[in-house]
Amino acid sequence: MTKPLAGITILDLTHVLAGPYCSMTLCDLGAHVIKVERPVIGDDTRAFPPFTKGKSAYFATINHGKKSIALDLKAEGDRAIFERLLARADVILENYRPGVMERMGYGWDDLHTQYPRLIYGAVSGFGHTGPEAKRPAYDMVVQARGGVMSITGEKDREPVRVGASVGDIVAGMFLCQGVLAALVDRERTGQGRKVDVAMLDSQLAILEHAVAITSVTGTPPGPTGARHPSIAPFETFHAADGLFVIAAGNDVLFEKLCVALNLPLADDARFATNPARVENARLLKRLIEAVTLDKTRAHWIAKLGAAGIPSGPIQNVAQAMRDPQILARNMVVDVLDRNGRPAFKAAGNPIKMSGLGDPTVRAAAPDLDGDRGEILRWLEEKG
Amino acid sequence: MTKPLAGITILDLTHVLAGPYCSMTLCDLGAHVIKVERPVIGDDTRAFPPFTKGKSAYFATINHGKKSIALDLKAEGDRAIFERLLARADVILENYRPGVMERMGYGWDDLHTQYPRLIYGAVSGFGHTGPEAKRPAYDMVVQARGGVMSITGEKDREPVRVGASVGDIVAGMFLCQGVLAALVDRERTGQGRKVDVAMLDSQLAILEHAVAITSVTGTPPGPTGARHPSIAPFETFHAADGLFVIAAGNDVLFEKLCVALNLPLADDARFATNPARVENARLLKRLIEAVTLDKTRAHWIAKLGAAGIPSGPIQNVAQAMRDPQILARNMVVDVLDRNGRPAFKAAGNPIKMSGLGDPTVRAAAPDLDGDRGEILRWLEEKG
Repeated sequence: MTKPLAGITILDLTHVLAGPYCSMTLCDLGAHVIKVERPVIGDDTRAFPPFTKGKSAYFATINHGKKSIALDLKAEGDRAIFERLLARADVILENYRPGVMERMGYGWDDLHTQYPRLIYGAVSGFGHTGPEAKRPAYDMVVQARGGVMSITGEKDREPVRVGASVGDIVAGMFLCQGVLAALVDRERTGQGRKVDVAMLDSQLAILEHAVAITSVTGTPPGPTGARHPSIAPFETFHAADGLFVIAAGNDVLFEKLCVALNLPLADDARFATNPARVENARLLKRLIEAVTLDKTRAHWIAKLGAAGIPSGPIQNVAQAMRDPQILARNMVVDVLDRNGRPAFKAAGNPIKMSGLGDPTVRAAAPDLDGDRGEILRWLEEKG
Repeated sequence: MTKPLAGITILDLTHVLAGPYCSMTLCDLGAHVIKVERPVIGDDTRAFPPFTKGKSAYFATINHGKKSIALDLKAEGDRAIFERLLARADVILENYRPGVMERMGYGWDDLHTQYPRLIYGAVSGFGHTGPEAKRPAYDMVVQARGGVMSITGEKDREPVRVGASVGDIVAGMFLCQGVLAALVDRERTGQGRKVDVAMLDSQLAILEHAVAITSVTGTPPGPTGARHPSIAPFETFHAADGLFVIAAGNDVLFEKLCVALNLPLADDARFATNPARVENARLLKRLIEAVTLDKTRAHWIAKLGAAGIPSGPIQNVAQAMRDPQILARNMVVDVLDRNGRPAFKAAGNPIKMSGLGDPTVRAAAPDLDGDRGEILRWLEEKG
């Protein structure tokens, strides 16, 4: 069985994170990704730490398995190569500021006329429309402006950044969805589409709960530390040896929790319903911790697990990378160096699919322009 | 031009957030989503606040535009309806604990034998394999265990939850990608595939940077408040009237920033390179704030914007929902009630696509079993 995107060629002009994250997923699903980089410097992230054997592990994490060719899209010879690639590609991805592709003669209208089957995927800070379309952005700018930082952090303290680069990554994921939907459509219509994803839009799109609360109550929610804003108990608790999470999302789970902790609260009016528990969450936390402080978190996680109550430890990234369930799912993979030896570890592909395979190694990330010969030969073969 | 997923039917057994978020996206892209709910109670989120006119706005945010039928999959008559739906569906989505579908006779192996074109998408806390496959999970359990909480929050304080439900939503997005890739594949092979996404896996998958740092240095990163861990200046700064973000991601932007702030630091060895600036980030923050405290954040954002330096305000969700760029992108939409009147506002579709349309209203969320008649008539028509 072939991979689901076998035979699909992605011409990838994106750099840094949002676009390359999208093409990484497409590559893991079997697409042939040709990374087109600017000469000499290439993708900015080739210079981002951490480094291993003189190469950026950050770059390699996102770009493993892709092919690289360096092209100067203002130089005639390289433009000719690029146009031969366009004629063979199924998808072009770019993350320039709006207008840059048009000035090079490769805007959507031109490309769609010349290559009607080509799908055009763009990701940018603010999108291709609207008053601020041409402003630059980075992850934290859209985390800040889009609202996610305002609900992340502790009450009465300054907002904090989400530790993961969700400003970039979520936008790259929406781009991936749009491109895949356009591929489904093209199988039936023969026509490509343009997909335009903005990092700022994508931040609002993941705030389903906060937007609903703001719209209905008129009051935007603030940060709540480690508590869920509208479910209780659903937060961190201290055990004898550290923090763990209990997530009792409904009345049945709360009753089971009371039994497991030997806490006679299930018939107490202050805790009888979820709204009441949210109202009295600070008191509830203290009553629960008065019990949980006495034993280790492993004790409680095992006990609550046996009772069917969701709970788990707070793990740092090293602990997560050793987690038996994560390892059993092949979610930590070896990225190879150019000599085929394991260089460092990266997260695996979270999309498990029948017939896809789930290897625990990843091909090396390409050197800048390292696949020029192979790509030119591939073009020759295609005629 | 039709929507890209026009004619694709999704049989959606999922509830709460991860699965319904996936089918919401598929619905926005044109798929026909039939939500199969358990009788009487339906999706748990029908009881989640906030409420408007007695209905959950939370439920409606995620389920607008879908159709609902209530089926008891253990009752003979309802099973017969369900099986007629299976014969017509392109995709089935479920988020039961692993093994539940098998016990009902609707496991992947059985379904694939009987309906070889059907795509099977599953999202669960820990996935369908591994020692803990059958444990329940909620958003915060996987945020905690997967590592994202350990890098979110302030240094030397307890970790905090990401305010957005990324434990659910990111998993729903990976599921959506897998299902779409399987649809692309099926156009060529005629065969469905099973997609198995775990919420825990999905959390590790968005930690590209933290995993690379942990693997290369042996030391997991901790929370850094509102600072990017390896780029400076890339954090929040105080202006006269509030907090804003400056994201100067490379040397060229840093030089422009020094000019814009009239700060003679570009030739200072302590700030000459990004690694040096990261090393001296606390000092750099104070030197920059000594300037920025003097004027409003609007002043600085306009000035830095004119100089091409990414910056922006920290906005709460109400401010984000009034942001002119967000409004220009149709990212705040009206969800209608069953009488066709605007009931409340939700986030729009971040996947802008040629030929898709970008309406600023959304059809109402379905009442429980509210489309039974229409769905049965649709089955009749299909024969």
